[in-house]
Amino acid sequence: MPKIVDHEKQRQLVAEAVWRIIRKEGMEGATVRRIAEEAGVSPGSLRHYFRTQSELLAFSMSLVSERVKERIARLRFTGEPLEDAEKLLHEFLPLDEEKRAEMEVWMAFTIKALSDSTLYELSSRVYAEMKMAVSLIIDTLIEKGLAKEEIDRDAQIEILYSLLDGLALHGIMQPDQVNADVMKNSILHYLKSICR
Amino acid sequence: MPKIVDHEKQRQLVAEAVWRIIRKEGMEGATVRRIAEEAGVSPGSLRHYFRTQSELLAFSMSLVSERVKERIARLRFTGEPLEDAEKLLHEFLPLDEEKRAEMEVWMAFTIKALSDSTLYELSSRVYAEMKMAVSLIIDTLIEKGLAKEEIDRDAQIEILYSLLDGLALHGIMQPDQVNADVMKNSILHYLKSICR
Repeated sequence: MPKIVDHEKQRQLVAEAVWRIIRKEGMEGATVRRIAEEAGVSPGSLRHYFRTQSELLAFSMSLVSERVKERIARLRFTGEPLEDAEKLLHEFLPLDEEKRAEMEVWMAFTIKALSDSTLYELSSRVYAEMKMAVSLIIDTLIEKGLAKEEIDRDAQIEILYSLLDGLALHGIMQPDQVNADVMKNSILHYLKSICR
Repeated sequence: MPKIVDHEKQRQLVAEAVWRIIRKEGMEGATVRRIAEEAGVSPGSLRHYFRTQSELLAFSMSLVSERVKERIARLRFTGEPLEDAEKLLHEFLPLDEEKRAEMEVWMAFTIKALSDSTLYELSSRVYAEMKMAVSLIIDTLIEKGLAKEEIDRDAQIEILYSLLDGLALHGIMQPDQVNADVMKNSILHYLKSICR
């Protein structure tokens, strides 16, 4: 089915053009004309791949989370709960240039979602998935007897998830101050603080 | 000096019009024409208050942080370090409708700052001020002998600041799930976790 593959490939190339525009010019730059120009296609042919601009933006946003999920699916866990927790949490942080690019785009879409219902739905779905991943980490630490007895499960899920998104935000805004080492160190200190 | 007062008042009214547009339509909506319309002035008269659109946006962004600073200046501290820490930290969270509106606008400007050097400079300055406030809280808990001896000062400053911004982001994105009680509870659990 080369035709279908090409079609999907082309959609991804357009989505990546949207990412580049958002990083360079902000969300305001992502007009149909600029997207077509950046992707090297005619504005008319864009309609072949996406019916509306809203659909195009939603696809571009979901592609970011797909990339993260693909990376997570390729992770090899060791069975050592603390080490595995760190490994998974690191995937949600802008620890290298590629992830920082994705995170910048993700945050821009997240904020745009406040005034775009299609993007908001997507953002809520990813919020729920992320929360589930964070819950899994806290629950595993509790079940394996590593977590301190006095910790409050629900409060720690909220704290860890917020810590993660706060670090991600600081990591893209102040990359010199909040670099990969600082982000990893924060996660490590947090995990130690809730473990025996 | 009624003229100067009026001028400043008018600049604030225009800035608040920008906030309303950002909340309703996103940053893309904040064009000179739409801002003039929302503020009830002619596009030409906007130039009387701001030389450029960039200056207008920078003023609108800085007005958000000014409002927060004004509220903090009015706080009455008790001298009880944990209680005072909570009181100060709550001012940085979208705990009511007014603060949520401000935080939505602030986050939108923060993301736009990634592709706007004037806004970026402002965002970096506020980042540094916030970090100083968070450092003050951690240092006070340490000096008063309330913090656990084993905590790492720098790591905890990073963790608390990230927790704060992560909660703020979740509070505006998922206000039903991350409501005022959840945010306050997260702060309380965090503070307890680093104290004896």
